[in-house]
Formats: sequence, structure tokens, C-alpha cells
Amino acid sequence: MLSVVAKRSTLLRQNVNCIRQSSSASKPIVGFIGLGNMGAFMASNLARGGHPLVVHDLDHQVVEKVKERARGHGGIVDYAKTPKELAAKADYIVTMLPSSPHVLSVYTSENGILSAVKKNALLMDTSTIDPTVARDLAKTVHQSGAAMVDAPVSGGVGGAEAGTLTFMVGGSVENFQRAETLLKLMGKNIVHCGEAGSGQVVKVCNNLALAIEMIGVAEAMNLGVSFGMDPKILAGIFNTSSARCWSSDTYNPVPGVMPNVPASRGYTGGFGVDLMAKDLGLASSAANAVRAPIPLGSQALQLYNMISAHGGGKKDFSFVYDFLKKQSEK
Amino acid sequence: MLSVVAKRSTLLRQNVNCIRQSSSASKPIVGFIGLGNMGAFMASNLARGGHPLVVHDLDHQVVEKVKERARGHGGIVDYAKTPKELAAKADYIVTMLPSSPHVLSVYTSENGILSAVKKNALLMDTSTIDPTVARDLAKTVHQSGAAMVDAPVSGGVGGAEAGTLTFMVGGSVENFQRAETLLKLMGKNIVHCGEAGSGQVVKVCNNLALAIEMIGVAEAMNLGVSFGMDPKILAGIFNTSSARCWSSDTYNPVPGVMPNVPASRGYTGGFGVDLMAKDLGLASSAANAVRAPIPLGSQALQLYNMISAHGGGKKDFSFVYDFLKKQSEK
Amino acid sequence: MLSVVAKRSTLLRQNVNCIRQSSSASKPIVGFIGLGNMGAFMASNLARGGHPLVVHDLDHQVVEKVKERARGHGGIVDYAKTPKELAAKADYIVTMLPSSPHVLSVYTSENGILSAVKKNALLMDTSTIDPTVARDLAKTVHQSGAAMVDAPVSGGVGGAEAGTLTFMVGGSVENFQRAETLLKLMGKNIVHCGEAGSGQVVKVCNNLALAIEMIGVAEAMNLGVSFGMDPKILAGIFNTSSARCWSSDTYNPVPGVMPNVPASRGYTGGFGVDLMAKDLGLASSAANAVRAPIPLGSQALQLYNMISAHGGGKKDFSFVYDFLKKQSEK
Amino acid sequence: MLSVVAKRSTLLRQNVNCIRQSSSASKPIVGFIGLGNMGAFMASNLARGGHPLVVHDLDHQVVEKVKERARGHGGIVDYAKTPKELAAKADYIVTMLPSSPHVLSVYTSENGILSAVKKNALLMDTSTIDPTVARDLAKTVHQSGAAMVDAPVSGGVGGAEAGTLTFMVGGSVENFQRAETLLKLMGKNIVHCGEAGSGQVVKVCNNLALAIEMIGVAEAMNLGVSFGMDPKILAGIFNTSSARCWSSDTYNPVPGVMPNVPASRGYTGGFGVDLMAKDLGLASSAANAVRAPIPLGSQALQLYNMISAHGGGKKDFSFVYDFLKKQSEK
Repeated sequence: MLSVVAKRSTLLRQNVNCIRQSSSASKPIVGFIGLGNMGAFMASNLARGGHPLVVHDLDHQVVEKVKERARGHGGIVDYAKTPKELAAKADYIVTMLPSSPHVLSVYTSENGILSAVKKNALLMDTSTIDPTVARDLAKTVHQSGAAMVDAPVSGGVGGAEAGTLTFMVGGSVENFQRAETLLKLMGKNIVHCGEAGSGQVVKVCNNLALAIEMIGVAEAMNLGVSFGMDPKILAGIFNTSSARCWSSDTYNPVPGVMPNVPASRGYTGGFGVDLMAKDLGLASSAANAVRAPIPLGSQALQLYNMISAHGGGKKDFSFVYDFLKKQSEK
Repeated sequence: MLSVVAKRSTLLRQNVNCIRQSSSASKPIVGFIGLGNMGAFMASNLARGGHPLVVHDLDHQVVEKVKERARGHGGIVDYAKTPKELAAKADYIVTMLPSSPHVLSVYTSENGILSAVKKNALLMDTSTIDPTVARDLAKTVHQSGAAMVDAPVSGGVGGAEAGTLTFMVGGSVENFQRAETLLKLMGKNIVHCGEAGSGQVVKVCNNLALAIEMIGVAEAMNLGVSFGMDPKILAGIFNTSSARCWSSDTYNPVPGVMPNVPASRGYTGGFGVDLMAKDLGLASSAANAVRAPIPLGSQALQLYNMISAHGGGKKDFSFVYDFLKKQSEK
Repeated sequence: MLSVVAKRSTLLRQNVNCIRQSSSASKPIVGFIGLGNMGAFMASNLARGGHPLVVHDLDHQVVEKVKERARGHGGIVDYAKTPKELAAKADYIVTMLPSSPHVLSVYTSENGILSAVKKNALLMDTSTIDPTVARDLAKTVHQSGAAMVDAPVSGGVGGAEAGTLTFMVGGSVENFQRAETLLKLMGKNIVHCGEAGSGQVVKVCNNLALAIEMIGVAEAMNLGVSFGMDPKILAGIFNTSSARCWSSDTYNPVPGVMPNVPASRGYTGGFGVDLMAKDLGLASSAANAVRAPIPLGSQALQLYNMISAHGGGKKDFSFVYDFLKKQSEK
Repeated sequence: MLSVVAKRSTLLRQNVNCIRQSSSASKPIVGFIGLGNMGAFMASNLARGGHPLVVHDLDHQVVEKVKERARGHGGIVDYAKTPKELAAKADYIVTMLPSSPHVLSVYTSENGILSAVKKNALLMDTSTIDPTVARDLAKTVHQSGAAMVDAPVSGGVGGAEAGTLTFMVGGSVENFQRAETLLKLMGKNIVHCGEAGSGQVVKVCNNLALAIEMIGVAEAMNLGVSFGMDPKILAGIFNTSSARCWSSDTYNPVPGVMPNVPASRGYTGGFGVDLMAKDLGLASSAANAVRAPIPLGSQALQLYNMISAHGGGKKDFSFVYDFLKKQSEK
């Protein structure tokens, strides 16, 4: 959910057009594994950028869809039966997978990427996973002679389609620079965070702070409203004082305080409770690995798990305001 | 701690000078009760504004000090032995007291303000107290024929001295307008929050959100640093993304990330842990009165109480970062 | 909710019968203020014990009911229009009121008990209130020449009717001994806790620990059941090991694990969520007054407030198990 | 820390003597992997029970120590260079390892147990690990034709030496019965919890409830003591009422309330803060896997992590009382 604040510009589209004019043939081959809701759009943007693609996904329908989209851009898309087969062909590999075990399997299993990766290939994992796993995986990859960056994204399905994602990149300066050109085809802000694993660390830390701040705003707004305060006046004062934060001034959780935010359209169309719970689960696991106390973060996770247990898992994460307030008729 | 963000200007000082030129004789008498660290400066600023003062405090030394300061401004300061005696003389009364019981006693006890208050006097309580108590007290005052606003402040002792405090005012529009002129002599931002009690509600809600956000930033920064992140880079990313907040971009709790904040000078000279715990105690009590859940807020209070139990009560409230991080040698 | 574990015996009833045979005329007059659900039964038991009663309550119907019941025991019940009028007649006064402000008003207001209390009268407040208030009130009473104990109860309406309540008594040894005789007419376990206020401290501390333990059992049972464990087997192991506690072995929160507990009858007929929240509110307020951290206790309070916000305030407090578990269809 | 309550008897020792009289030659060979503080004693007890042993550990010194101890019992101990080599020889295999990754490696890596396990061998993992991992591992083992139970222990190093451990066993009835005979040589209470993985579930759930109850008792005792209560009196009332629990009546965290508990000897010699944090970490991870909310359990973990960050990781887990109370001079 990081840098949703980024203003969408048309600059990128113009860049993309420039790139399209060069011929596909001269561009390195990119492998893409994981054509889910976001991955399918990201792969299409790479094809639009002129890269011949070789893709892998267990779902054949989505592969067909990506091929079709790519055809519109004159792109060439090949299908590989396994990550191994894909790795043998690709100079760059992008992975976009649901969780740490999926990533480990795709990279290190018998038919995984590492069983056939080219020397000097650059691997980019855009999944959101455990920072410790990311760090360890990068070591393993480097031992195999290939290069790797972790590059988790924010910006959602909308940003994936529009090519305006933010990538938080962890890896050496050299690897970051190699990755940047390709990531620019899929995103707008490409941020170098530090060594391998630090992209994941930044994403997890950002969303940890974000979740806590959102709940803090929700608690304070609900308390004020319970005492008869007009939520717009209360938010207005927060926003010019020390309680000011993105969750209050850009994404306020109280219906009607701001237009065009999930709270004002039934808590739909944002960053879901279950997704936030997943990220807080990663934060919790990371914090526990280094014994860093997160007294509010762990409580935030429990709260989102409770909301989910009560059926609110698909709502936007600002729905916590609704969960805290007095239920009118249940 | 609200609106510490306000940029200090010299405008006010100019206003004060204008006012000083008018003669004291024509100004209404102001009573001031509670000449503590902040109250003494606030009273001096009223005297500087040309108002004849009658003051009450149990500590005679501080009374002498206020008299002396006022003399410098040509001001006239009288001493009243009881709130009752003071109330008999004053057209406006300002109170600045440590807690709800003190306020109740000063207003409603046998020798309290209400036993002798003038009809049409305007009472302004600038203490930070329980919103429910404030609301009830305003009713009692109105029944006695006088007018009342609650007007808790933020800005600290420094703001009290400089006359740059922020006042969050609860009361009718009419009473707010009457109060505003006087409050402008002591502060810079005079914010009308709503009906009686709402000044207290806003202050308590703001500081509730603030405390949670600060701890959220501290947890996330500590987690990142534990994973080897450079705190400046991490804060930089927060500040341009969805974790952005005042506690991160204006008052960062990690030493060295920003100059001129308490964290970079040994957590001194800000808003103390014990003061934040006091405000969170009011939030907790208010939330409990209306049964509004504050799962993170209550945890924030416990954390500040733990820091205090471990000897950190006088440190700035951003010291929570230090408390969470691994202690090097204990 | 303390000492619900007490086995009900018939011994008390026999004592009561002995006492009834002595004549009312020789017994001291007892004043009773607060004839609510519990108070009405407690007063009736005093009448049955042979004491002439003078009662006060704002609700006249309940006064009539107590008179009628007392008549069945040959008892004499008088009505007093104010606490003052009652105090002028009584040698012992029992108060049973909803909260601290009610208690303060009944004792210290213009027409309160203290305005007319007899020298050497013994006042017994059986309400559950803030320990600090109880301690301060005892001091005020002692200054007036009367004696006082705080004696909050547990055992519920059922225990009030059966005369099997537990009283936790705070006061000097001498006052405790004077109180004991009378309290034995209404209860079974009369526990001396220490100086004035300590009855309230014990009640609040017991229920603080109890609430936390109950939630702990609920969390652990729900986690086990989520992993497919048979709750009876899991509870059985807890009960013979280090997780053993009253909330697990006597009042298990999982439906079907034990017969005759609220969990096995739809969470009805026990100690309600709202009552537990009230006691946790007192614990929270007391803890804050002395800055004693209660990280889990404060979270327990928030959880019960959330349950109440979601409509579960009247359920037994073991309902927290139901609130935590996955909702089947909502 | 489960079933520390078990009274130690001499019965087991007598059984062991009976068994010793039979000849080692007729007993099946047992493999043992992981000769740490507890494992070394457990292996020795198996040798004493007359089983020829083949052991594996990376630390050669500890292997020598076990050989020497076994010699005292006429036992035969062989050393295997890898789990694979060990598995080729053993009919029963016991593993006692620090965490999930170690267990996975020992069982499933290239030179792991499964690469050479005998058909019908019975594998017993006595490590405390993630329930989900345990469940998955059992499936993998069963596919290889061998049998498996998870059997985490409680009772500590003392119980390992005395042969009085408690084993919580997960697996089919048949496998449980096969395991029981062998586990009896190392422990006293062998509890069948259910299907594979349920031993781990029970251990994790028990310690989750235990940690919460301990902190609950610590908070309530500290609150009472802060109000001047005698801790012995307070504990006494808890122990006969609804706050009664093992953490209060058997392992009270307040120094001086009970003899012979860690609290009365400087919080030494019990179950360490870091070990409890490890188990709460497993609980947290398990709870998150099934999205079961543990609002107090997660807070308990954070509290133990904070205690550890402040240098108390080696103290007994009842040290939380000390951490919460006002520090006299820091």
C-alpha cells in the first residue's frame, strides 16, 4: 500500500511509446513467473516495452490472455512448462508470487529457476515476502552466479495496469541499476532501499507504521464522534496539527469526511483487510526473528484478524473505523 | 502537544504592542487562577495586554513574580485569597490547573468561583481535563448565569512565554467570540471546536492519535534498523508514502535522523512521557465513559506507564523508540 | 464475580433460623440504601435476621416489595425520604449503589448520610467502586466520628437471594468484627482484606486477573480448535497442567466442554460482559492513578468494550470465546 | 513448561530397573539425534532402559559423554556421521532439535533420515516446533513408509535427567501405543493428544494460556501491592476464588509469597523468558496461519520481547512481575 500517494502522470506512457519504436529483436528476453491479478498486467507492460517474453504459470487461461495482450503490442510471448525451462532462455526473470513458500519453490526446487539459470541473469522478485527469506534467497542466487534484487511493489492492480507501481528495491547498486530500466516499464517510482532484502524490509516497515496510524486515526475519530464532534471538523484540526498523517489527510476512514476514498464508498476498492493482515503477519514474523518489540503492531494484526473473523476480510483496511464504532442494530 | 507545527510569527507581538498602547484603565478586569509553569507566563501576557489582573494561587512566591513581571508592563495585579474573592471582582476568569478535581474544587467548592461569580462573567478553563467533567461543569456554570468555555492549550511552556499557544475552544459561538480576544493575548491559533466540552474532546483525541502514531513510527523504525536499514533512508521513504505522519516527518524519534528534535538531543526539551501518559489517561477514561474501544490507545498508555516505571517519565515522549530498542548494556 | 466457587451450604439457613427466634426489638436498627436487583434481596435477608429496617430508594415500588417480604419474617420496615433522615435513625447503614458518584452523593451531599450520622454508627458500603474513592470516603467518615468499612460483594443476584454472597471487607480489625455479624446475614464468606479501601482493591484485582485468564483460555482453546483439537481433550490437559485455572476447569468458555456453565446454555445467566467491563474500567482507573502498568488488563477492557459495541454486552463474560472464533455466516 | 505440576514418583525408577534386567540384545535399536542439554539425558535414559543406541550430533564431545554414561548401564552406543547413516540402522528414531528448520533439515535433506529410513521404523520428534510443520512432516514421513509421532516435552532439564518428563503425543492410536513404551523410559506422563501435529498444538496452546495467566497474575498482584495490599493475603484470596490458577497458587511471581519458586530465588532456575518467547512465537505463527485472533497472547509475546531487550531473557518467565513494578533506582 506504499506510495499510493504518487500522482499518476502521463510521462511514463510517453516513455513507453519511445521504447516501443525500437525493435523487439534487439531487446533481451524477459522471463515472467506468476501471472496473477497484478502479474498479468505487469507482464503485458514488459511486452509493450518491446521485450520478448517467456512466461510460466500453472493457469493456462491467463497465459493465453497475456499472449493476446502482447500481440497487440507486437510482442512475442513464449510459454515454459517449468521455471527451469524458462530460466534456460531468459536474461531477466521477474517473479510475482503469493508468499514465501511459493517463492522458495519456484527458485530452489528441482525444476526451479536455479537449476538452469544463466550466468549473469538478473532475477527480480516482486512478491511481498519475509525479509529474512528474501535475504537468504539472494545469497543462494549469488552463489549460483546469477544476480538478484528483491523488489516488492505497491500501487495495487490499478497501478499494475497503468504501469505506475512503486518498487522498493533491495540489492547492490549495480544490480539496482540493471533492474531499474526494466522496472520503469512497469512502475513509476523505483526506490533503492539498500542491500538485498531491504526492499522487503521497507515494505513491511511502511505497512506496519501505516496500519498502526490508520487504527490510531480510527480510534481517535470514533472517540470524538462518540462525544458528538463533527468528524470533518475533527479531521481538519488533526490535519493541521501533530496528529496529521496520511491516514487522516489523504485516506480518512470516516465515511463522508473525504470524497473518493474507500470509506466514502462502502469501504470498497482499496487495500483489503486480508492483504493488510498478510503484511502485518510478515512484520510480526520479521520482528520476532530479531526480537524487536512491536506492541501496537501485533495488536493491529490481531484487530485485522478479528475483523476478518467477523466477515470483513474483503473490505478496505480503513474499515477498522466501522468495526470499532457502536453497531447500530445487530 | 497539539499544533506544535504552527510556525511562530512575529505578528502577534505586533498586535500586543498595539494593545499595550491603550490604557489599562479602560480594560475589563481579568482573574487568573493557577500560576504554574505555564499559568505564570499566560497571566503576564494578559497584563502586558493591558488588563488589570486579580490572581489566586496557593504559592505566594509565584504571585510575587507575576506582580513583578506585570509591573514591567505597567500592569496592575491584585491578589485574592480565595477563588470566591477573585470572582467577585473579575469580568473574565482564566483557570489553568493540573487536573479535574482541582478544577471542580476551584469552581464549585464553598469558596469557589461560582459562590460569587458576576452575572455575565466569562469563565475560561485552559486546564486539560476529562471532557465529561468539562461538559458538566459548563452546564453548572450556565445555570449560575455566567458563561463558560473550555480552552485547553498546546505549545508548552515555551509557547506560554512567547504567547504563541494554540487554544482548542469549546462553547457557543457567542462565548467563543468573547473569549477569542482575550485568548489572542496568550496564543496564536484560537480554534473553535464546537459546543462546551469539545475543546477537551479535540485535545484528548489529537493526543490519542499522536501517541499511537509516534509509537507506530518508533516500532517500524526500530524493526527496520534491526534489519540493518539506514534510519534516514527509511524515514525518507515513509515521508513520501502512506506511512507519512508528523511523528515521522517533523518529530522523528530516531536520534540523528532530524536536527532540532528531542531525539537528537537526548530526548530532552519536548513533551514529556508523564504528560503524554496523563493525556492518554484522560482519553482512556473518556473512551470508557462512552464505551468506545481504543485497543491501540490503551496499549500506548500502558507503554508510557512502563517507561515511567523504568525511570523515563521526564524524557520526551519520542523516547519510546529508545525503550523498544535492544538495550546495549544493562 | 469473586468466589463463585463457594459451595452453597445449608448451614447459614440454620443460623438464620436461630436468629429469627430472638425478638426484633432487641436488635439494632439497620438502614439500607439502594434496593436494586441485589440490594432488595440483601435487605430482605437483614429483615429475616431480625433487624428493624429503615430503607431509602428513589423507586417506591421496590420499597413496597421489600416491606412486603419483610412482613413475612415479622420484620419492621420504615421508609426514609433522604439518606439524612435514614442516618438519623440507624445504628448500622448498608449502601448498595451502582457507581462512585452515586456513593459520594449518598454519603456527602447536603442531605447525605454524613449530615446526620450517629456517633459510633457503622457504615458498610457494599457497592463496587474505585478503590481510591473508597479510601478517601472512609477518611471523611472517620472524621465525622462514625466508622466505615468497604465491603464489595460477589455472587450475583442468586447469591444475594440465597444469602450466600462473598464480602471482601476493608477496614480496621475492630470495624471488621462489628461488620461481620451483620454481613453474615447476607453472605457466607466474609473476608478481611486489610485497611479501608482494601475490599475494593481485592475485588478489582481479582476480577482483573479473572478477565485476563478467561480471555487467555478462550484464545488458547480457539487456537487449538482451529487446528482440529477436540476441546474436551484440550481442556482436560490444561486442567492437569500449568495452564490450569478457574476459567478452564470450572467455567470453561467453550460450549459443550462442561455442563451447567453459561457457555453451555448460550452464554446466559452468568456474569455479564458489561459488568466485567465496568470492573475492568475501575481496574484501569485505579492502575492509572498509581501508574501501575496493566498491558493485558487494558486490552481485556478494550475487548469487552468491542464485544459490547457488537451487541454482546448482556452475554456472560465467557462469550469472548464466541467473539474470537470465526463467525460462520455474517 | 507443561505439567510441571506432576508429582515426581519413584515408580518409574522401579520400572526402569525391571527393564534393565532383560538383555540389551533382545531390544530394538534406537537412533537419537540432538544431544543437547535435554537430549543427552534422554538418550542416557534410553540406554539405561536397555536399548542399543546409535546417536548423531555435530558436537563430538557430547557424543563421548553419552557413550560414557551408557557404559555405566552396560549400554552399547554407536555413532553415525549423518542422519542417513543412523536411519539405516535404527528401528526407532528420537529427535530433539532447537527449531523447525533444524527438524526439516534432519528429516528431509539429502543426507536426512528419510533418505534411508527403514520401512516400519517409528520416528518420534520431541522438539517443540510449528504445528503446521509437524503436521506436514508427518505426511511426508508416512508417504515414505515409516511411522511418525510428534511428542514435544515439558519438564525441563531436571525432568530429562530424572526421567520424569511429560510427552504430548500426536499421531494415530497405533503409533501412539508403539511410542509409549519407549517414551516411558524418558518420561512419566505420556499424553495422547490426537492426530499427527496435535502434540505440538497442545504444547503451544498450553503455553499460550500459561503465559497470559502468568502476566494476568503479575498485573493484578502489582496493582494490589501498589495500593498497599499484603501480597500473601491477596494471593490467598485469589487462590480460593475465581482468579485461582497455577501461576498464582503454584508458581506465584511475587518474591516471598511462596517458597521454592523462582520468584523467591531471584527468578532463577525455572522456565526462561527467552524460551517462553520462543513458544509464544510459535503460537503467534500458528495463530496467524489459521487467522485465529490472540489479542492477549500477541501482547504477551511483545512483553517478553521487551523484557529480553532490557536484559531479562535468562530470568524465569515469572520475572514479568518485576518488570512491571516500579523500578526503585534506575
